[in-house]
Amino acid sequence: MEQGKAALGWAARDASGHLSPYNFSRRVQKDDDVTIKVLFCGICHTDLHIIKNEWGNALYPIVPGHEVVGVVTDVGPGVKNFKAGETVGVGYFLDSCRTCDSCSKGHENYCPTLVLTSNGVDYDGATTQGGFSDVVVVNQDYVVRVPDTLPPDGAAPLLCAGVTVYSPMMQYGLNAPGKHLGVVGLGGLGHMAVKFGKAFGMKVTVISSSLRKREEALDRLGADDFLVSSDAEQMKAAAGAMDGIIDTVSAGHPIVPLLELLRPMGQMVVCGAPSEPLQLPAYAVITGGKRIAGNGVGSVRDCQAMLDFAGEHGITADVEVVKMDYVNTAVERLERNDVRYRFVIDVAGSLQQGGAA
Amino acid sequence: MEQGKAALGWAARDASGHLSPYNFSRRVQKDDDVTIKVLFCGICHTDLHIIKNEWGNALYPIVPGHEVVGVVTDVGPGVKNFKAGETVGVGYFLDSCRTCDSCSKGHENYCPTLVLTSNGVDYDGATTQGGFSDVVVVNQDYVVRVPDTLPPDGAAPLLCAGVTVYSPMMQYGLNAPGKHLGVVGLGGLGHMAVKFGKAFGMKVTVISSSLRKREEALDRLGADDFLVSSDAEQMKAAAGAMDGIIDTVSAGHPIVPLLELLRPMGQMVVCGAPSEPLQLPAYAVITGGKRIAGNGVGSVRDCQAMLDFAGEHGITADVEVVKMDYVNTAVERLERNDVRYRFVIDVAGSLQQGGAA
Repeated sequence: MEQGKAALGWAARDASGHLSPYNFSRRVQKDDDVTIKVLFCGICHTDLHIIKNEWGNALYPIVPGHEVVGVVTDVGPGVKNFKAGETVGVGYFLDSCRTCDSCSKGHENYCPTLVLTSNGVDYDGATTQGGFSDVVVVNQDYVVRVPDTLPPDGAAPLLCAGVTVYSPMMQYGLNAPGKHLGVVGLGGLGHMAVKFGKAFGMKVTVISSSLRKREEALDRLGADDFLVSSDAEQMKAAAGAMDGIIDTVSAGHPIVPLLELLRPMGQMVVCGAPSEPLQLPAYAVITGGKRIAGNGVGSVRDCQAMLDFAGEHGITADVEVVKMDYVNTAVERLERNDVRYRFVIDVAGSLQQGGAA
Repeated sequence: MEQGKAALGWAARDASGHLSPYNFSRRVQKDDDVTIKVLFCGICHTDLHIIKNEWGNALYPIVPGHEVVGVVTDVGPGVKNFKAGETVGVGYFLDSCRTCDSCSKGHENYCPTLVLTSNGVDYDGATTQGGFSDVVVVNQDYVVRVPDTLPPDGAAPLLCAGVTVYSPMMQYGLNAPGKHLGVVGLGGLGHMAVKFGKAFGMKVTVISSSLRKREEALDRLGADDFLVSSDAEQMKAAAGAMDGIIDTVSAGHPIVPLLELLRPMGQMVVCGAPSEPLQLPAYAVITGGKRIAGNGVGSVRDCQAMLDFAGEHGITADVEVVKMDYVNTAVERLERNDVRYRFVIDVAGSLQQGGAA
């Protein structure tokens, strides 16, 4: 049997979540595969849950990472759209069944047998290993093109954080000039929602639990307004004003005060996943015919559209670039939200391809 | 000052909710008003909450009733669309501001200053009195036509229960042949949702807390399938199958097992209003990009479209017609869900217009 490509990543071995060098093999490149040298990979909150087995589904050893930007180094003979030297991205998943209802309608991110980029199970039974590694091998249909105008480090978080907020904004019409968008929580996802909202020409209000991020929301990110969610008077004065809300908060929080910010028939989108159930009194949605939707990343098509849009508007994530040997510290800091707004690992600058850490 | 029309209704005077005869005046008919002799009026669960002041907003004395079918007896000179002798209906509200965003878009049911038909406050400051009375006077724009093909008693509950389920079915595309609709709870609203679903050519599954209503759901109402929500195995076997769910249950109940019945991107509509908050874990909507919307009745346009559709398909509510002097017993029985599926008061057969009970 042909030997796959030698790869070096950093992996967690147990629920401590501690990451350390790990040698493994990538699959043999198939006809439709793209082989990608990883340049940068973002650190997402999901990585944190996974490596610590907080969702009870860890398949150790785990190489995390699903915000991958890299350079194509080789392609299979069936690959038409990519060639060596191009800058590409890989997001939260790297395959799907292609036949279910969701796949057929171009919403493969909701395929019931979606293959996640990290800690997933591929159709051949292999556990997938993510982008905290020097090389990835991915079917061409799940690879996206990263515009040349975007710096690859700032682009990496677009592959998950970016598309996770962009996709529902497109889906629910929260992309039109003059509309009013609320963004709850100013972290990796939230700061992207502000940037997209402003690029769409919307009025954007950031809603946060404290005044701490007011200046940067208004001055640095260009939000139009800032509300402290605990300030009942301020919240009341803003009631009924917003067309939509992107809620990115992953800690428990009351949603009734947020629903009250919506206009009648307004749309709230839940992108963060608190471990405790949200408390939803029926009257809070019946009055005004309001709506709540969950959103899980976006389709490959959404992701490409988002990258193209970001390329045109010069939108990237605000990142702190770190070397691989800083990753455990970065994870700790991320856990206490001590980052503005995304850690990105300089993978190519940290690992020698196929070699040692 | 001109004297309004003498009216006789049955009103609650305090939080006991006990109803007894009550003499009052309707407003002087204005240019755009329609005067309606009430024939039948349905008893809705909302009436029950209101007369017992369970929502803390009772304006005693309260004449309940917002599922009104009657005959036009007089119209103001500005009324073009109705004339004496025609059968018409009045629903949950009888005026709105006509200028707000919701009103402008034809969703006046979400007008922030909506004037409810009973226990509401009209724009002149008067408390509104509902259809448990011999006569109502209503602006023409909030009156709907009841098709001649429909019996007026069975049509009365369409004005609230009917439009409350029909409106979101239209809004969220749950009206297409071949789609699969779940109806949770088989009461006044639920049995209407089954009838509309079948008339739309959908597959309809009733989800209920016990087997008790299985026979009538399948045999009498024509539902295709029946699930007992407490039967985990049955529910699991039905997972991911439904395009939409109309949830009409007004008691506390778990919604995660219901959300699991939805296909990816499926739509659940909350029409019942339990007093305890629904427990909504974010993962239950993020996985599959599922959606929850609240719905409060429907617009006047929706209501007319619903009545026209009901007329074409011979759809009415299953009713138990009672005289006015049975109303307190009916309210008691409704409280313990002892009715299939709606009480309707034979108002004209119980009250002499302008006279005694």
